[in-house]
Amino acid sequence: MRKSPASDRLFVVLIGARNPLNIGAAARAMSNFGFTNLRLVNPYSLAFREAKSAIGASAVLKRAQEYKTISDAVADCSLVVGTTAARNRKLDHNLRPLQEGAGLIHDQLHDGNVALLFGSEKRGLSNRDLSYCHWLMRIPTREATPSMNLGQAVAVCLYELARDRAPVLKRETRPTATSAEVDRLSSLLLDALRTSGYMKPTSAVATEEKVRRFVRRLSLSPDDTHLLEGMLRQILWKIRNK
Amino acid sequence: MRKSPASDRLFVVLIGARNPLNIGAAARAMSNFGFTNLRLVNPYSLAFREAKSAIGASAVLKRAQEYKTISDAVADCSLVVGTTAARNRKLDHNLRPLQEGAGLIHDQLHDGNVALLFGSEKRGLSNRDLSYCHWLMRIPTREATPSMNLGQAVAVCLYELARDRAPVLKRETRPTATSAEVDRLSSLLLDALRTSGYMKPTSAVATEEKVRRFVRRLSLSPDDTHLLEGMLRQILWKIRNK
Repeated sequence: MRKSPASDRLFVVLIGARNPLNIGAAARAMSNFGFTNLRLVNPYSLAFREAKSAIGASAVLKRAQEYKTISDAVADCSLVVGTTAARNRKLDHNLRPLQEGAGLIHDQLHDGNVALLFGSEKRGLSNRDLSYCHWLMRIPTREATPSMNLGQAVAVCLYELARDRAPVLKRETRPTATSAEVDRLSSLLLDALRTSGYMKPTSAVATEEKVRRFVRRLSLSPDDTHLLEGMLRQILWKIRNK
Repeated sequence: MRKSPASDRLFVVLIGARNPLNIGAAARAMSNFGFTNLRLVNPYSLAFREAKSAIGASAVLKRAQEYKTISDAVADCSLVVGTTAARNRKLDHNLRPLQEGAGLIHDQLHDGNVALLFGSEKRGLSNRDLSYCHWLMRIPTREATPSMNLGQAVAVCLYELARDRAPVLKRETRPTATSAEVDRLSSLLLDALRTSGYMKPTSAVATEEKVRRFVRRLSLSPDDTHLLEGMLRQILWKIRNK
């Protein structure tokens, strides 16, 4: 398998990983399939240090970067995809099987950075984590035993991403806003909702997550993001200066 | 994924496995992808006992069988396939990429038992082991880092085997709002833009068209349409009643 330049635009993001063996296994699978960018959000720091200093730690692991928040970890990515074992979970997101999702990611890698999120061994991705995702991808495991080991889940996803695929018909794709742009827009909308009294203090956190998920579902282009920002700024100004 | 009867004819055979974690991981991947028959040839017996007695050991592991020789372990199989990371190794065997090999195994499973062999973590399959194989299968890893972790290699092979016959999961698509719903939302947004002073009377028509196109580009679901309507109504109320 030849490494494609596009594979440099994929970022594997492990959230709250606890076990150094799993972090090492994820990094190894990345090397196996030609991906180099590993990011960790709030890993148990002992686990991260152990994994990094292990004999034979891969180049991938040595250059892995640590982030405090998921928002920072995906700021430069225009597509954020969460992985989940959930089948019937009540989801606000599109849930795509791996095979189909990998094709879409593959296409998107030609245009910008893509983040692929894996949750912690114990709990997977939280609702808050999911609120940063554009859509979710599911490895087609059996109903009776859906949940995969972290290192194996990473390996299977990257294998499918690297797998030869029938040439996909060129779709007309519009550029997508980066996560940082989407975050800025979400903040503005939240400001407007707070100022207008739409948000109740008692449910502020839930509403914030709901709004972040909502804005991501829109899959806005950079232009539309700016358009909507302009609208919101004017509305906010009016509410505040009346 | 539904378990097909043919998957009962596949035997995953680990040869000389040393690490209980790897044995457990192999068994877990089997459960994930619907395969139930695990055979171990000369495992380090402590490792095998540890893996078998681990809390949460899977049904696959509990019914795994131990063999003294590879010959016994594959006696009832009509096709024996070895897995290898070798690329340029001097081989007497056909070496097929995983994608192609999985297809052949898949066909063969309709007629008889197939054994899929994985070597030990340190040395892979020996020449003696290979002498029992009809052909070899290779996971298409990168040249610089070909060798995979045992548990991950098993996961990727079984994923590919399950992949082709996996009934395609019903794609969950979200419904799209009707034109009437989108129109109602556009009107509300236009109201907010008028009231806030975003729209200038001189360019009202152009802005109206721009906003209508914008709202359609969002491809909102009925639920999201209602969500956005609620936000806008509250914002409008605030502007008008302040």
